[in-house]
Amino acid sequence: MVKVLKTKIEIEGRVHEEVVVIDGELPAPWDSKAELTIVGQPVPRVDGAERVTGQARYTSDIQLPGLLHARILRSPHPHARIKYVDISAAEALPGVRAVICRDSTAPIKWHRSSFVFDSTLRYVGDEIAAVAADSLEIASDALRLIKVEYEVLPHITDEQHANDEASPPVWVDEPRNVIGGEPEVYKRGDVDKAFKDADFVVQATFRTPTALHNCLETHGSVAQWEGDNLTIWDSTQHIFGVRQRVAERLGLALNKVRVIKHYMGGGFGSKNGAGKYTVIAALLARKAGRPVKLMLNRMEENLVTGNRDSTVQHIAGAVKKDGTLLALKLVCYANSGAYGGGGMPIAGPVQEMYRCANVYTESWSLYTNLGRDSAFRAPGFVEGNFALESLMDMMAEKVKLDPLEFRKKNYAERAPKDNLPYSSKGLRQAYERGADIIGWHSRAWADRPAVDPKNPDIRRGYGMASQVWGGGGGPPAHAIIKVNADGTADVITGTQDIGTGTKTVLSQVAAEAMGFRFEDVRVHVGDTSLGVYAPLSAGSMTVPSMSPAVQMAALDVHKQLLAIAAEVLEVKSARLELKGSVISQGKGKKSITVKELIGGLSDYMVVGQGLRGPNDNSYAINTFGCQFAEVEVDTATGQVRVLRLVAIHESGRVINPMTITSQLYGGVTQGMGYGLMEHRVVDHRSGIVLNPNLTDYKIPTALDVPLEIVGEMIDLPDTIATTTGAKGIGEPPIVPTAPAIANAIYDACGVRVFQAPISPDVLLDALQRRDQPMVVEQPAAAELAPVSQKEE
Amino acid sequence: MVKVLKTKIEIEGRVHEEVVVIDGELPAPWDSKAELTIVGQPVPRVDGAERVTGQARYTSDIQLPGLLHARILRSPHPHARIKYVDISAAEALPGVRAVICRDSTAPIKWHRSSFVFDSTLRYVGDEIAAVAADSLEIASDALRLIKVEYEVLPHITDEQHANDEASPPVWVDEPRNVIGGEPEVYKRGDVDKAFKDADFVVQATFRTPTALHNCLETHGSVAQWEGDNLTIWDSTQHIFGVRQRVAERLGLALNKVRVIKHYMGGGFGSKNGAGKYTVIAALLARKAGRPVKLMLNRMEENLVTGNRDSTVQHIAGAVKKDGTLLALKLVCYANSGAYGGGGMPIAGPVQEMYRCANVYTESWSLYTNLGRDSAFRAPGFVEGNFALESLMDMMAEKVKLDPLEFRKKNYAERAPKDNLPYSSKGLRQAYERGADIIGWHSRAWADRPAVDPKNPDIRRGYGMASQVWGGGGGPPAHAIIKVNADGTADVITGTQDIGTGTKTVLSQVAAEAMGFRFEDVRVHVGDTSLGVYAPLSAGSMTVPSMSPAVQMAALDVHKQLLAIAAEVLEVKSARLELKGSVISQGKGKKSITVKELIGGLSDYMVVGQGLRGPNDNSYAINTFGCQFAEVEVDTATGQVRVLRLVAIHESGRVINPMTITSQLYGGVTQGMGYGLMEHRVVDHRSGIVLNPNLTDYKIPTALDVPLEIVGEMIDLPDTIATTTGAKGIGEPPIVPTAPAIANAIYDACGVRVFQAPISPDVLLDALQRRDQPMVVEQPAAAELAPVSQKEE
Repeated sequence: MVKVLKTKIEIEGRVHEEVVVIDGELPAPWDSKAELTIVGQPVPRVDGAERVTGQARYTSDIQLPGLLHARILRSPHPHARIKYVDISAAEALPGVRAVICRDSTAPIKWHRSSFVFDSTLRYVGDEIAAVAADSLEIASDALRLIKVEYEVLPHITDEQHANDEASPPVWVDEPRNVIGGEPEVYKRGDVDKAFKDADFVVQATFRTPTALHNCLETHGSVAQWEGDNLTIWDSTQHIFGVRQRVAERLGLALNKVRVIKHYMGGGFGSKNGAGKYTVIAALLARKAGRPVKLMLNRMEENLVTGNRDSTVQHIAGAVKKDGTLLALKLVCYANSGAYGGGGMPIAGPVQEMYRCANVYTESWSLYTNLGRDSAFRAPGFVEGNFALESLMDMMAEKVKLDPLEFRKKNYAERAPKDNLPYSSKGLRQAYERGADIIGWHSRAWADRPAVDPKNPDIRRGYGMASQVWGGGGGPPAHAIIKVNADGTADVITGTQDIGTGTKTVLSQVAAEAMGFRFEDVRVHVGDTSLGVYAPLSAGSMTVPSMSPAVQMAALDVHKQLLAIAAEVLEVKSARLELKGSVISQGKGKKSITVKELIGGLSDYMVVGQGLRGPNDNSYAINTFGCQFAEVEVDTATGQVRVLRLVAIHESGRVINPMTITSQLYGGVTQGMGYGLMEHRVVDHRSGIVLNPNLTDYKIPTALDVPLEIVGEMIDLPDTIATTTGAKGIGEPPIVPTAPAIANAIYDACGVRVFQAPISPDVLLDALQRRDQPMVVEQPAAAELAPVSQKEE
Repeated sequence: MVKVLKTKIEIEGRVHEEVVVIDGELPAPWDSKAELTIVGQPVPRVDGAERVTGQARYTSDIQLPGLLHARILRSPHPHARIKYVDISAAEALPGVRAVICRDSTAPIKWHRSSFVFDSTLRYVGDEIAAVAADSLEIASDALRLIKVEYEVLPHITDEQHANDEASPPVWVDEPRNVIGGEPEVYKRGDVDKAFKDADFVVQATFRTPTALHNCLETHGSVAQWEGDNLTIWDSTQHIFGVRQRVAERLGLALNKVRVIKHYMGGGFGSKNGAGKYTVIAALLARKAGRPVKLMLNRMEENLVTGNRDSTVQHIAGAVKKDGTLLALKLVCYANSGAYGGGGMPIAGPVQEMYRCANVYTESWSLYTNLGRDSAFRAPGFVEGNFALESLMDMMAEKVKLDPLEFRKKNYAERAPKDNLPYSSKGLRQAYERGADIIGWHSRAWADRPAVDPKNPDIRRGYGMASQVWGGGGGPPAHAIIKVNADGTADVITGTQDIGTGTKTVLSQVAAEAMGFRFEDVRVHVGDTSLGVYAPLSAGSMTVPSMSPAVQMAALDVHKQLLAIAAEVLEVKSARLELKGSVISQGKGKKSITVKELIGGLSDYMVVGQGLRGPNDNSYAINTFGCQFAEVEVDTATGQVRVLRLVAIHESGRVINPMTITSQLYGGVTQGMGYGLMEHRVVDHRSGIVLNPNLTDYKIPTALDVPLEIVGEMIDLPDTIATTTGAKGIGEPPIVPTAPAIANAIYDACGVRVFQAPISPDVLLDALQRRDQPMVVEQPAAAELAPVSQKEE
């Protein structure tokens, strides 16, 4: 067993940073020559049957004796001060078991200087009070009995004006509504000089929408106290993170809080930690002396649980005639809502995608009186890539290069931002494969005639876009494996399967490394008390963080079993091989199964332990991909139909081609929704979100997805990133979809759209300006000027 | 970490037995000189609050979405063959979701040649069919709709006639109703010669009752399928045992079955494994496609879940004038019911209690048409000790020695049965302490005048009895400890706290061995999937099996923390001390807390692992005790009032004086019930149990317990038994209570009662024979004669 521990702690004012290696041996990495029989197979989901038959129990399915149902009273105003809250009538309603509000509970700190129940309300949906009752109906009735008097304050919801001097501050101590007080600035090289030296400068302003996660399973928690021990069932991407936050907020020791989550119906970054609802469920349960279930409804889900920032991005590129990219500049504004953390890496693609010596980015995160921003599948990169990859096509046209050739010409051989070698990079192979499949080189380039002479409004076009993202591992993770007397094994982890197939993939890794049959392995997830620490299931991090830990624990088991077999068979363990749950001694000698070896040991378990250590920081660990779209545009209606979407990605070793392809399909579908359909609409005058539902907020359904999606991986084991060679794939496939479609729309009808989603009305608007120059929404020079000034 | 593995397996016809030591270091044993600060303290139960406030969730509290409620149709006949079962009307009842019986399910093997649903019914209560429905009421209604036609067979319920040639066989292949076909015989020395050489031979026949466990929480299971994974919540003393049996019976892999049990309301040996109800719940759940709860009601609890065998014991002792015990002979018959395993160690006390060179025992276990026997707190020893310890007093009187002196004279310095040294024995100290407290030496010996001259019927008397029992450890057990970023720890085990305080005691061991504060530790139990293997919580085995495993895991954690601290503080780890969650560097240097040390490591856990290996077989590992009773007998009514009961026991180190004293109180109370009140009554003609309830079957209530119970331990760390020095105390305190009371009754009124319970009617019967010779129920010589014949 190996324990690698990187610790950074302050003792007596001195910061210590150490790496402690406790003892043992890391698994030999599975490089491209490793002969693997289970890893690499398209094994169906191990929990598929229970998911599709309704046997899987989600958080909202939890039933407990005496369980109460809770609801939250939320602000009807985008900005207001509470003059008073009167809960007495609600408390008196029969069936109501607990009511809490600002005045009835000790204040619990939340975002910045605010509290869980704050006296200032900062968006429509902000928490005022909560009720637990015998039924959801009684709880809803009780909400209507709570009397609140408000002092309504001026509000700002439009990020384009949040920073205006006249706009009211969301937080009194941040008068200009800028998170951190100033933008985040990054620079390398000399951008001004590069812009002067360039043959062409192309610039534009892009706008991207606020997108809502719309997890099929809404956010929610069930809380139960047993003495001073709190158990929380939570729909979360990080059980240990929820434990940490709840313990902090309620002043409990970490081992007094148990967080459980087994099945999950989507998170996409919005479930990375505890919500106010989690803490409120625990408070209500404590007050009522009974367990409490608090599940958000769809409207709450879409108002309060986070969203992808809407952005305004002013972007400019400088390029030489021969297609060399000289410089990139980006000034972007993101709408972080009232409680957002901001700092989304919208500038990420500009900084990291291409070889480009001179880069300047300036990222503004703005408070507004709206629900908070939160991570959303490749946060920042989806927004930023829409602008960058549109601009890349614009520049390619300027220098008269095929968009793919232009990208290849500026291919980054080392990571541009950190100037580190990549642990692996298979983007070139992805370009070739994707181009082959879509028929990129045989397509007619440039505006082409109508597809159907009888219907001249229908145009067909092709587009593509690239993608870079992280996904190499993240913080340490643990795993334990127990071998039962019948030769089956239980893998104990503290991770969570957020719907991506974690259990299936880790079963493959464990079986492979132990030398067991796949069906002999069962992976357990989702319990902080009994599981061992695992990081957040986000950041495309689960496979690269968990798979090496499981691999190491499996290796530990493998060795112990061989040692026992050597003892029992009276041979040297080096002469034994354990594969397919069979231990063989070599030619002519009898083999025995693991079950035969340890069948008599029902009173004993072989227990193995594994740990994944920190990343190797001397490499840039990234994942890559590109997507090619073939679209049909109806220029009369503005309707876009995606005929084919070819997604080719590289994220190290492919452990399971089936689950990884599912991720590609899901990412492409969500990316298409982002590019063509999804858009939270806010009435800025009232501060009200007009479509916090699934009727008016459109997400792609089965009828909307591309007619054909081809998802393929470049299988390139990356043994620098992880000992299994695998990196993460959760986020990458959403990143290039929208710009690939936008570029295909341009190819189809010669109109560049600077705004997502490219809904029919937006496209029709753009088509009506067809006669204008290509860069139709080029920003005024003044808009980019401050950038240069600030550079000096 | 140390892994000691004893394996015995057959491969290619060859049996291998090996001890494999994988690696690492056992903890240094805590001998009597160890300076312990948490172990040894009377810490209140960590789960006391939730238990007494109703927050603790037992198996019957489990709620699941779509949960069905189940009931079982049981045989009304003690012996019958089923001609047919018709479930169609039951299946047609609205709300019924599944009905199963012999004909509707694949046969599942159970005891001997029988099946879960067998075509032969062998006692009143045997399973015929089962129903799962939307409510318990519908399920009950449905039972009445099941049509069964029986062929009633002759039955036998009286163990005194079970072996008669004329009695019908319970099992066709065991015509004489003897389990195993013959009695279990043990002998050492030459009993016949010793009986001839003796100055006195005392013999008698004792009868003991069938006692019912009457756990406050009845037996039951909740079963839920998710795909082919089965989760069972079970009220059990062995989650891994239930897993093993259910997996076997249903043909499932061990890792497909998860057994969960958190809180428990009593087991006493009757919940050592899966019942038919467990398998039936799983079958119903599978058939209905919904989870099923199957809790037995009190009548079922008392008919089908096991009981302590009733016995008939012919016993004889040979003694020299000087009080030297020469020989003991025992021929006993036990009623094992229809499905009992038999083999209860009723001869155990005769074989193991005293130094006695010549012993012969012959134990018959008999099938009858009644519910099965099962382990019940010190099975066999309670029954056998009633006879032996009564006989000891009879012999003491014969040789004119004080009963205590007689016992001391025949004190065993080595284990008489195996002729091994004891790992420790504190019985002599217990005798001294108990005699002191009760005032044994100052009491008037021999029949004494009435206590109250105005009420000459009231007599007072004193009696005592000894006890020996196992309790050194049992099979290996595992533990894992995780340290959280706030310096708190979670101890992960696969054991179960059956109500004895396991969580509290293991918390103390973990805190002590890690050097943590007690309040920083939380122990987890009761989950086979996430916990690591632990044995049965029975046989007084939990503390001696689990505490060394936890101690070792804690030591592992302790060492890792010191290694990290050494690295961070830049000192040698040998110079550091970790105690009370503080790491100190010695005089004048700053101390840091564990939280300070690892507070930055929320992404990492220190994980320790521990294993308890097999016992050292070169020692006899036993526990000992003695009890002294002071009673008041009303010779007019036959009522016995226990005024004082002094229980002094030795079971190695006392980890928690409070929890261990609770065990003494509980054992004494249950022992008093056995001696004075408890008695299952069977109508042998109909084969029906007349009192399977808590109205007619009397157990001691708070008003019945002795007016004063003094419970004390001789604290004698036994480092041969375990590295913590602790042995088990669950069973010992019930063993000597009944004979101590019987001996006190004799002391009070000069009447020897040869039968338990000594209820008023029994005592009145005996009092009416006061003028007869002391050995009133001496068996005919013929009754013991066959013993001697068989010895030859």
